[in-house]
Amino acid sequence: MSNIYDNAYGLEKAIRESNEFKALKEAYEAVMENEISKKLFEKFRDTQMELQEKQMTGQDITEEEVEQARKVVEDVQQHEQIAKIMEEEQRLNLVINDVSRIITKPLEELYGFDEESTH
Amino acid sequence: MSNIYDNAYGLEKAIRESNEFKALKEAYEAVMENEISKKLFEKFRDTQMELQEKQMTGQDITEEEVEQARKVVEDVQQHEQIAKIMEEEQRLNLVINDVSRIITKPLEELYGFDEESTH
Repeated sequence: MSNIYDNAYGLEKAIRESNEFKALKEAYEAVMENEISKKLFEKFRDTQMELQEKQMTGQDITEEEVEQARKVVEDVQQHEQIAKIMEEEQRLNLVINDVSRIITKPLEELYGFDEESTH
Repeated sequence: MSNIYDNAYGLEKAIRESNEFKALKEAYEAVMENEISKKLFEKFRDTQMELQEKQMTGQDITEEEVEQARKVVEDVQQHEQIAKIMEEEQRLNLVINDVSRIITKPLEELYGFDEESTH
C-alpha cells in the first residue's frame, strides 16, 4: 500500500523534473509575463473549458459558440508564444498518456479488455 | 524522460502487488468461475458502459433504460460475490484517485488551479 504512494510520489517528481514539463513551464511563464498574451491565453482556456463542460454534461453547443471558439483558436495559433505552450502541452500529454496506459494495465488485464476501446 | 517511464512501470508493479488489487482480482475470479454470476456481472458491466457511452456522447437516455439499469444494479447488489467485486473496486479506486491527484499536481500547480474544480 505505502509502496503505491512512494511510487506515485516518485513519478510526480520525475514528471516535474522532466524536460517536457520544464519546457511547458517556461513557455507558460513567458506568456503569463505579458499582459496581452496572458489575457488571450486565458480567454482561450475559458472558451475551451466552457465547451468541454457543455459537451460533458450533454448541453447543446450553438453555432455561434463554435464560431467564437474557432476564432479564439485562430488568434491563439497566430501568437507564437501561446502556440509554443500548446506544442509543449501536446508533447507532455504524449508522455502522460503513456503513463496512464502503463498504470491502468493491471485493471485492463483483469477485466480482459482494453478500456480505451470502449470509448 | 526515461525516468518517468521507470517510475511509471514501478508504480504499475506496486499496484499489481497491492492488497487492494489482489483482493479485487480474487473477487473477480470467483465470479467468473461460475457461469450464472459471470453472465449477471457481464450484463451489469454492459449496461453501465452503454449508459456511460450515451452520457459521454450526449445521447438521450430513456426512462426504460434507467429502469432496466436500476434493476440490474439491484440484482447485482443481492449477489454477494458480485457485490464483493464492487466493494473491492471502490477500495482500489480510492487509491487510484489518490495516485491520479499526486501525478497531476505539477500541472495543476503550473496552471494555478485545481483541475477537478472545473468539472
